[in-house]
Amino acid sequence: MITPERAMRAKAIQLGKLAVEATTSAGSGHPTTALSLAHLATVLMYRVMRWDPKHPDAPGADRLVLSEGHAVPIIYAACADLGVTILPGNHARPMTRDDLMALRSIASPIDGHPNPSLGFPFFDAATGSLGQGLSVAAGLGAAARLDALEKTIYCLIGDGESREGQIWEAMDFIADHRLGNVVAIFNCNTLGQSDFVSPAEDWQHLQRKAEAFGWTALVVDGHDPSAIETALRRRPPGSNGQPLAIIARTVKGWGVPSLGGPGHHGTPVPKSGLAAVLSELDKRAAEQGVANLDPAALAGALAIEPPLPAPASRPAGNPVGFLTALGADPKLAETVRSKRSMAPRRAYGLALQSLGAANPAVVALDADVKNSTHAQDFARAYPERYFEARIAEQNMISAAVGLASGRKIPFASTFGRFLERAFDQVEMGIIGGANLKLVGSHVGVTLASDGPSQMALADIAFMRTFAHVTDFRGNPALTVLTPSDAASTYSMVMAMAVFPSACYLRAVRADLPILYDETESFPFGGHKVLRRPAEGGKRIVLIAAGYLVHSCLKAADALKTQGITAGVVDAYALPLDAAPLLALAGPDGIILSVEDTYVGGLGSELAEAVGQTRAGPRLHVLAVHKVPKSGRTPDDVLAYVHLSVDEIVAAAAGVQ
Amino acid sequence: MITPERAMRAKAIQLGKLAVEATTSAGSGHPTTALSLAHLATVLMYRVMRWDPKHPDAPGADRLVLSEGHAVPIIYAACADLGVTILPGNHARPMTRDDLMALRSIASPIDGHPNPSLGFPFFDAATGSLGQGLSVAAGLGAAARLDALEKTIYCLIGDGESREGQIWEAMDFIADHRLGNVVAIFNCNTLGQSDFVSPAEDWQHLQRKAEAFGWTALVVDGHDPSAIETALRRRPPGSNGQPLAIIARTVKGWGVPSLGGPGHHGTPVPKSGLAAVLSELDKRAAEQGVANLDPAALAGALAIEPPLPAPASRPAGNPVGFLTALGADPKLAETVRSKRSMAPRRAYGLALQSLGAANPAVVALDADVKNSTHAQDFARAYPERYFEARIAEQNMISAAVGLASGRKIPFASTFGRFLERAFDQVEMGIIGGANLKLVGSHVGVTLASDGPSQMALADIAFMRTFAHVTDFRGNPALTVLTPSDAASTYSMVMAMAVFPSACYLRAVRADLPILYDETESFPFGGHKVLRRPAEGGKRIVLIAAGYLVHSCLKAADALKTQGITAGVVDAYALPLDAAPLLALAGPDGIILSVEDTYVGGLGSELAEAVGQTRAGPRLHVLAVHKVPKSGRTPDDVLAYVHLSVDEIVAAAAGVQ
Repeated sequence: MITPERAMRAKAIQLGKLAVEATTSAGSGHPTTALSLAHLATVLMYRVMRWDPKHPDAPGADRLVLSEGHAVPIIYAACADLGVTILPGNHARPMTRDDLMALRSIASPIDGHPNPSLGFPFFDAATGSLGQGLSVAAGLGAAARLDALEKTIYCLIGDGESREGQIWEAMDFIADHRLGNVVAIFNCNTLGQSDFVSPAEDWQHLQRKAEAFGWTALVVDGHDPSAIETALRRRPPGSNGQPLAIIARTVKGWGVPSLGGPGHHGTPVPKSGLAAVLSELDKRAAEQGVANLDPAALAGALAIEPPLPAPASRPAGNPVGFLTALGADPKLAETVRSKRSMAPRRAYGLALQSLGAANPAVVALDADVKNSTHAQDFARAYPERYFEARIAEQNMISAAVGLASGRKIPFASTFGRFLERAFDQVEMGIIGGANLKLVGSHVGVTLASDGPSQMALADIAFMRTFAHVTDFRGNPALTVLTPSDAASTYSMVMAMAVFPSACYLRAVRADLPILYDETESFPFGGHKVLRRPAEGGKRIVLIAAGYLVHSCLKAADALKTQGITAGVVDAYALPLDAAPLLALAGPDGIILSVEDTYVGGLGSELAEAVGQTRAGPRLHVLAVHKVPKSGRTPDDVLAYVHLSVDEIVAAAAGVQ
Repeated sequence: MITPERAMRAKAIQLGKLAVEATTSAGSGHPTTALSLAHLATVLMYRVMRWDPKHPDAPGADRLVLSEGHAVPIIYAACADLGVTILPGNHARPMTRDDLMALRSIASPIDGHPNPSLGFPFFDAATGSLGQGLSVAAGLGAAARLDALEKTIYCLIGDGESREGQIWEAMDFIADHRLGNVVAIFNCNTLGQSDFVSPAEDWQHLQRKAEAFGWTALVVDGHDPSAIETALRRRPPGSNGQPLAIIARTVKGWGVPSLGGPGHHGTPVPKSGLAAVLSELDKRAAEQGVANLDPAALAGALAIEPPLPAPASRPAGNPVGFLTALGADPKLAETVRSKRSMAPRRAYGLALQSLGAANPAVVALDADVKNSTHAQDFARAYPERYFEARIAEQNMISAAVGLASGRKIPFASTFGRFLERAFDQVEMGIIGGANLKLVGSHVGVTLASDGPSQMALADIAFMRTFAHVTDFRGNPALTVLTPSDAASTYSMVMAMAVFPSACYLRAVRADLPILYDETESFPFGGHKVLRRPAEGGKRIVLIAAGYLVHSCLKAADALKTQGITAGVVDAYALPLDAAPLLALAGPDGIILSVEDTYVGGLGSELAEAVGQTRAGPRLHVLAVHKVPKSGRTPDDVLAYVHLSVDEIVAAAAGVQ
């Protein structure tokens, strides 16, 4: 009869050995970090977590988020030992020891850092860029609470990693929303990559910080299975309460004196030294009286509790159309009717509220600008599905990743400019295949009065790159949308909600004339020809998105008086199918791309298409080439950056 | 005789009135936030700070960093009242009341948020995107200590703003480096933009958090000038010690009941209501017995202490060349000689160390990867000029902005991938004109084994946008450099140090063959033709940067065996002068852009040039179009993303 205590000690050493072997086999990786987690991983995966290795992503299963993703070999070792299901659909099969030893090889789903999209469903999100996991855990905890699932989300965080400010954004967020179903475990092994961690991240400071952030913080010996289990079981049941942080004091390279101290981070044991290291770990087993235990008895002593039953998700209905939604607010409807104009961001709020009514899976987050982005329309109607993220954009995005993994459709909004500080988090979401719905408001220079610190001018260059990356579903990894009126904004938000891959909507602040009927559809990859150029001769086509579509329409009117019939196109989506646009301009034509952002957006998209064609139109790009400043009106700032209607007209006439 | 106490109360109300008038004049802005800072700004600028309104940027002057940039009208009001010098060079003149009332107009340097590059030298850095100011203050404090200047850096932070994780990265950094010359002042007015701040950011929690982060934290009434002054003067002298945080309890919309409570953020008082608001503030003056004080007596009661004398900066010498630097490390020199190869990141460390020897203004920061980026070579040689930022990239970048403003040349390095989470901070540095030297290592897919969470693939798309923005000096706002060997890396790092605008160097991880002599120079905007294409006919030119330059050379060798003499170009710099490359390929030629990043980099740069020309070469872009994964060798991953030498050859032959 093996006690659970002895079984956990034996298993931890077995897993440690496997992790060391795997990294030696790979020729890279982080064996010493993995060894510091050997006992924590064992207690979680073999004793405390309620889950099923055959169905690692069962909705009712407890979850483990490995924020310090480089420690993943210890988790892979457990998954190989337990035969956890890997690979999707028909390819699904139990993970083997051979899979483990194929760590980091090009044909293997056992990647260098956690990534569910490669076929490793035990994980909910890609990690590896540090500081993001606790936010993902928060999103998973929020999703579980909405589904009344009494599961627990465990998150393993490195001590050096806890220097990332995002960790503290997540600590605040979890405390704010009383996500008592999230447990943060700090792995205090005292060593970073290049040195010992700062005293500011030692176990005493981490305990004080966690308490100051409103958490219960327990310090344990991270290599004492019983102490770890006791601490973890002190979490009060229920998903609504004060969160628990475990400060685990551990040893990097545990069990192997030759791997202790600085200088061993991310360094696999050479093949020549492997036997010695493994025998050191065998010695630890012998010293603890857990060497050569009977495998069957060991397995019996470590029975894993099954996941909780999970209700089916509630079905979604059909959201109402733009005019119906508008009609629900008679005052707004009247204003729109009389002015024939409305701000795209206002239409976003209206659309989000309609989605909320139709689909219980739709949730929203915003970073204390909900009255500007109009996410507040949703927040007021569905407060239980709205998560105020406060002024902390990185946590908001990673929390949205967790909500998406928790079977929700998360719309996360703030000024497009402020999403820039979360681009790492956006990319990690894309790497893991998270179905994110991002909304950036106040894009372009027409924000005017607040100045460049609030204007999204480089967001499109970064986001567009992912429009040309194919995700594991076969879709563009990110679809970028810049609507030019309220009706198209509303329609695109509806389309975002049902599209199975990530999207980014760029919502203009200003009131814009309404161009489209509510019946118009806006397929991703498409565009709208608002004016056709004169046939034959040297055609000219003005292409823009958002605010500048209206400037181009005015410019076309002015060109008409000069006898030039220019085409005008609303290029609302990236990626853009450019072929029809090249045909519209014709072989001798000229395309004028007009954009109130820095280069890297629409103009680059068109240039990449035009540059390939020998017999095709030429392209001229009008974009922003200086840092803007405050102006009291959009026209003031557009003139400052040389994008006034007059300058568009002059450019068009000039290239004619 | 007016006591300082009464004078400060009177002045605070005067400034508050001016701030309200200015935002009404602008028709936008944040009068209520400004009023919450009226007394804090007055005590700092009229009483505690040692500075000279005629020379607001004197090196020996105490500094004020307004992290909550939207509160700037109260600072502008003080600057107009004191006639602080604005505008550069010959245009320099004292700020007037008219300047203040021109707030946010297109022709005015009095922008919506602080921006020194527009001609407002009182500020050291652009702020407005929240959470960054304390890091800037840390950089200024570090620079002052290096110069043995006993000045103090004050930083005003909003309570809601303190939700940004970067604030806590900065709190750790300042405590780590014992920057006792930095004083953090939290403006606890209890209101954010869309709601009350979270309890997690109330004054009690902020005090507990600051103490847990190792600071002394004093709570004061933020509208009691004497209490504020007493607290500020409790900072122990010297620039090396435990930092002081002031938790100031304030009232948003102080003095004007009708502006209190939620719903007044960022809302100017309408012209119709201005008189009533101003008379409310006059009532406060009367109640406090400070109405209608004699202006001369008031000015006399508020004499500002002058700045400290500052030593001239020490002159820079000439750094040694690549081979000399290499020679100083005989073992490394021998390896390089025998293998004829060296990693660009290794050459970066060598170059940085040489710069450190030659120029006392050169400083370095790294985010706990200094043994990977090789910033450790500098850290070991010049520990007093190296600032370990730990795993906190946002703080590192904004601290570099502060160091640059403090007359240093800061090289900040980490994996290029991890800079993505600091793109907001990079852009704020660029907006303010900070002379940043950014270094991103491990760029491209050839990092291989660690996988996509560590590979910089979208960095170039974002950074390139700023290569096409002209900064206030007339330079590209950011020059992006991707060297293909160690000698060119060394040379480019030398050039970065003397170039007066921001640069971003992308350093490959892998050992690369050495292509260049140490005498070769690499002018920004230039390129190197390594192979000329065969004259006449349908020429083909392969263009790449970094690792893939070597793949293209191999591809050219293989094409030669097929009778195709392809050109090969090392396009190491963005912006790129493309005209010579178009000429090299000729009107009937083909340019093949080969890049191991997502789209938005070199290929877009070339496309924008090619797309304009009617009689010119065509362009084909080979880039990364799927999310990579781990592979055990660079070749494995290059093949996975279809960038093997064979595929380059096939593409080249195919378009021939």
